[in-house]
Amino acid sequence: MHLQKGKANCITDVPGVKVGHTTLYEKLTEEKTICTGVTAILPHEGNLFRKKVRTGSAVINGYGKTTGLVQIEELGLLESPIMLTNTFSVGAVWQGTLKYMLDRTQEIGDTTSSINIVVGECNDSYLNSIREQAIKPTHAISALENATNDPVEEGDVGAGKGMVCFGYKGGIGTASRTVTDSLNTYTVGCLVVSNFGKREHALFANLETTQIPTPDGSIMMIIATDAPLYDRQLRRLAKRCAAGLGRTGSRIDNGSGDIAIAFSTANVYDHKSDSAKETASFLRDDHPVMNDLFQAVIETTEEAVIRSLMQAKTTEGRNGRVVEKAPI
Amino acid sequence: MHLQKGKANCITDVPGVKVGHTTLYEKLTEEKTICTGVTAILPHEGNLFRKKVRTGSAVINGYGKTTGLVQIEELGLLESPIMLTNTFSVGAVWQGTLKYMLDRTQEIGDTTSSINIVVGECNDSYLNSIREQAIKPTHAISALENATNDPVEEGDVGAGKGMVCFGYKGGIGTASRTVTDSLNTYTVGCLVVSNFGKREHALFANLETTQIPTPDGSIMMIIATDAPLYDRQLRRLAKRCAAGLGRTGSRIDNGSGDIAIAFSTANVYDHKSDSAKETASFLRDDHPVMNDLFQAVIETTEEAVIRSLMQAKTTEGRNGRVVEKAPI
Amino acid sequence: MHLQKGKANCITDVPGVKVGHTTLYEKLTEEKTICTGVTAILPHEGNLFRKKVRTGSAVINGYGKTTGLVQIEELGLLESPIMLTNTFSVGAVWQGTLKYMLDRTQEIGDTTSSINIVVGECNDSYLNSIREQAIKPTHAISALENATNDPVEEGDVGAGKGMVCFGYKGGIGTASRTVTDSLNTYTVGCLVVSNFGKREHALFANLETTQIPTPDGSIMMIIATDAPLYDRQLRRLAKRCAAGLGRTGSRIDNGSGDIAIAFSTANVYDHKSDSAKETASFLRDDHPVMNDLFQAVIETTEEAVIRSLMQAKTTEGRNGRVVEKAPI
Amino acid sequence: MHLQKGKANCITDVPGVKVGHTTLYEKLTEEKTICTGVTAILPHEGNLFRKKVRTGSAVINGYGKTTGLVQIEELGLLESPIMLTNTFSVGAVWQGTLKYMLDRTQEIGDTTSSINIVVGECNDSYLNSIREQAIKPTHAISALENATNDPVEEGDVGAGKGMVCFGYKGGIGTASRTVTDSLNTYTVGCLVVSNFGKREHALFANLETTQIPTPDGSIMMIIATDAPLYDRQLRRLAKRCAAGLGRTGSRIDNGSGDIAIAFSTANVYDHKSDSAKETASFLRDDHPVMNDLFQAVIETTEEAVIRSLMQAKTTEGRNGRVVEKAPI
Repeated sequence: MHLQKGKANCITDVPGVKVGHTTLYEKLTEEKTICTGVTAILPHEGNLFRKKVRTGSAVINGYGKTTGLVQIEELGLLESPIMLTNTFSVGAVWQGTLKYMLDRTQEIGDTTSSINIVVGECNDSYLNSIREQAIKPTHAISALENATNDPVEEGDVGAGKGMVCFGYKGGIGTASRTVTDSLNTYTVGCLVVSNFGKREHALFANLETTQIPTPDGSIMMIIATDAPLYDRQLRRLAKRCAAGLGRTGSRIDNGSGDIAIAFSTANVYDHKSDSAKETASFLRDDHPVMNDLFQAVIETTEEAVIRSLMQAKTTEGRNGRVVEKAPI
Repeated sequence: MHLQKGKANCITDVPGVKVGHTTLYEKLTEEKTICTGVTAILPHEGNLFRKKVRTGSAVINGYGKTTGLVQIEELGLLESPIMLTNTFSVGAVWQGTLKYMLDRTQEIGDTTSSINIVVGECNDSYLNSIREQAIKPTHAISALENATNDPVEEGDVGAGKGMVCFGYKGGIGTASRTVTDSLNTYTVGCLVVSNFGKREHALFANLETTQIPTPDGSIMMIIATDAPLYDRQLRRLAKRCAAGLGRTGSRIDNGSGDIAIAFSTANVYDHKSDSAKETASFLRDDHPVMNDLFQAVIETTEEAVIRSLMQAKTTEGRNGRVVEKAPI
Repeated sequence: MHLQKGKANCITDVPGVKVGHTTLYEKLTEEKTICTGVTAILPHEGNLFRKKVRTGSAVINGYGKTTGLVQIEELGLLESPIMLTNTFSVGAVWQGTLKYMLDRTQEIGDTTSSINIVVGECNDSYLNSIREQAIKPTHAISALENATNDPVEEGDVGAGKGMVCFGYKGGIGTASRTVTDSLNTYTVGCLVVSNFGKREHALFANLETTQIPTPDGSIMMIIATDAPLYDRQLRRLAKRCAAGLGRTGSRIDNGSGDIAIAFSTANVYDHKSDSAKETASFLRDDHPVMNDLFQAVIETTEEAVIRSLMQAKTTEGRNGRVVEKAPI
Repeated sequence: MHLQKGKANCITDVPGVKVGHTTLYEKLTEEKTICTGVTAILPHEGNLFRKKVRTGSAVINGYGKTTGLVQIEELGLLESPIMLTNTFSVGAVWQGTLKYMLDRTQEIGDTTSSINIVVGECNDSYLNSIREQAIKPTHAISALENATNDPVEEGDVGAGKGMVCFGYKGGIGTASRTVTDSLNTYTVGCLVVSNFGKREHALFANLETTQIPTPDGSIMMIIATDAPLYDRQLRRLAKRCAAGLGRTGSRIDNGSGDIAIAFSTANVYDHKSDSAKETASFLRDDHPVMNDLFQAVIETTEEAVIRSLMQAKTTEGRNGRVVEKAPI
């Protein structure tokens, strides 16, 4: 049994969600190649600080450097874009994203409080000369400025440019599903940066068993939905990514940062309010649609990983290393 | 790729681990049937309070009533057997297990501290007249006294007697794997009480799509190993059960208590010591054998669920309800 | 600066909250004395399963056996009374409370799901012959039936009968505060079972330094409020109990189960609903009243501990041990 | 009762621990003032990546942007210095610290894995023109290069330059204690960046009640010890900081990022090893010295906060704002 796919089978099927990429590729020397990028996910088209969305996260394996999870866990709110990049560019992307938000929101750090920037990462150092730190804050800003509601470009683009998955070229993948209660239809979208696994582990295809010597890798999984959920419920969605990963054959290796962040666009939360209270509607946990939302997370996580392989192209990186497109 | 199975493909392949069942089945009236039981898992043959083992747990979905996890999380030690039963018998089994331990350990609650009793549960109320609370403390004690190192009886026995999984008769299932570093071979065993899922969700078989109206269910997953691991590492193993569940097709439904407990028999920790310090050896997290242990957890969780279906028999319960053996 | 005290400076100042005790005291032999009890806290006067309240918890130190926290963390709801007793009576009190709820709620375990029973404990084995397991399920039921909205009896009653705190007689203590936003006044109440600390640690009084050889003990802290908060916010309140404990001088010893549970009576959540959604109002985290609620938790935790000492009487327990009333 | 203070009552009393500051102060315009800095804490004098130390953390209130906690929680290891700065400089300090480590460790990101950089922050925007982002990666490097084993400069220096605590000038504070088992003496040191609280909340002094309109602030608490503890035990130490905070009068406000990180220098863990196992000695949780370590954390946290006020000087910042030295 499978749920209905969304219109474009993309995270941008969730109304308002935008995705943008910046991709860097340059052969610097015989040994050194820049093969990396940035991907930006914006929950809605307004000011993300002034209009926050509900968020939850799950650390499926914590060998990762994602910033911003401490505050998400405490307050259940997302007030920045979600940025994805390589492991050594977290600082630069953090800075660029902060600048982007400060430029658009004069009150932050002046008359109102600070802002929590979320940056996730995978390690693309098999192909990318990561020690060069080629990504600058401006690359984060351009990814943000490139963001659109269009179907997402997948494979070896943006943060996915240098990633390797199941021994083949991985990167950006996305998928979506729709679920319905009697009155409403909701969309769940997933976007991943895939960078994990050995060929012999894949459950979705009979891959070769000759190996390339990649280290343990990681996966970032971003879940968007327009179902009205609050932070505890979104954490429940994020946790289901582990089952989707399991379906692909992942062992959730020691060296893998497997981190999921889920947000809902349904209830927007004003940064400031004159009222002491806020009123909102949320789905009941025991309504059958909640189980369908869980299934949508599992299915889209699995499919997004597979699509990241299907859409990627054979890529040459540092030290003359070549990672092939998967034969699927 | 699959890891090597253990000798009997059972949790009791881990040296010292013992399992015992008490099964209750009685048709009381036209409507009421007692169809339930208790399963006991003992990490080793000595006094479990005086010789504790390292333990970690993972709450994959917390719609469950397992006792003892608070202290496991704080201290990383298991000092009682792990008991499994139905949801409304947690109190009785807790009491029986306490009595069993007090009778064998005069100092508890007298000259030394208290004891942390671990009882897990699934809800067998589709078949079992659970409101009758048929299980008494003595049933827990008899499960403990029945425990042996023999291959484990599976299916509709012990705590599995009344359970329903993927719309067919579920219950107790177990599996094991061996992994090796260059010097040592380690065994990982898993025992589950399976009680979740709809027919249409199964990924391991093409089951009928006619449904029986079971509620969301649960699964308890107990992982035993003789690999030398400490509590943080055992929590990592327990978390991998989510990927094994995902492989079976579980959606980890809202109403499901999906709880994993992992223990290692390799380092025994004395309740009292004259020394301020203890010295022990543990596997390094970054050694490749750790990833194999993760894979062993995933494979045994998946297989234990399937075996729980394969070994169970068609069972009649309360209100004349019949749950069939799965056609696998 | 101190907040305003509630009407009776009691947890029952929160409208609807009821508290009941059952106290057992009997000298069995020269060595054996039963000196223990049960305390029940009911969030409101209706059926607690059919009308659930929002809840959050904090494990400040997890050397404890409290049941029910797994489900509270997952669903953010309380559907049973909160029961307090001695460490070895968790099973009996769990059973009695289940029976109490089943008798009043025919659908549980029949046409609807299971119920999550919350039982907290401290170890009263210095005074109480805890191995006797004198508490029976009926004692839990009588504590529930004794519950009233009246000012709470404190000191050596109910679950506090055998407890020892800062080397003097401890037990039940309670306190309350009111806070206000511009439109509403909210009450915060705290009830503790105090059973921790050495004389030399007390910060609130200059106690003698002669010691009695009590082991590390525990404290259960229950926070009630009518402020409209949801589970994440209630977890934040529960975490503030650590600061209140710190003010008394507690070291939060290794062997201490220091556990806080906070609930709000403001929004009642129906067990079943025809609607997929629920709508509710909650306080904003950034409204100043939230900080006042945090302060109310800290002040009432501190004061409830001190009151538990002030209200207790010198008590003789097993082995002829006498614990004196504190000179405060 | 108080524990014995360490030699210099400083975190650097723990052998090997080094601390360095970079302080920035410049009046740019009538409105804009740079009043901020960086503080670096190095657990030992060797290469921190190649020789990792055991670590645990506690998020007492998560309104904060600290990086690196996800991996600390998963692996229990610290492999970078701990850097402290202002909220908007997390990215720059992260980058500078990465560069510092890459320059000294050629294999990172080339032949071996990535590195987890830990940066904590408080919001100094009351005095500092934080939107200017005056801190550059080189300032982090200079703080690292300035680090020594000498007694730590306290008050308005380094990351503490622009901080405000209890309505007076706060900043860097430190304290230490020694504890002993029969055979060994261990040192516990704490360093804080204090930036929280209103005058009326202080418990340690009778401060004025005229307020300055500072927002909710934060506190970073770093605990160092040479007691042999592993990550679970260090998390227990970190959690005790909440009690120390409580003693000062903190309400742990909504907008406060109250985060504690504890590390032990006793067992160094090699980044790479030929062995599958490691062997180490750790203190037993139930040895009395563990409770003394807890008390040392509580006492040093409290005292470090008070010292941060005592050692700071009246400071003028942006918009002509002046924060006075506390009258203590």
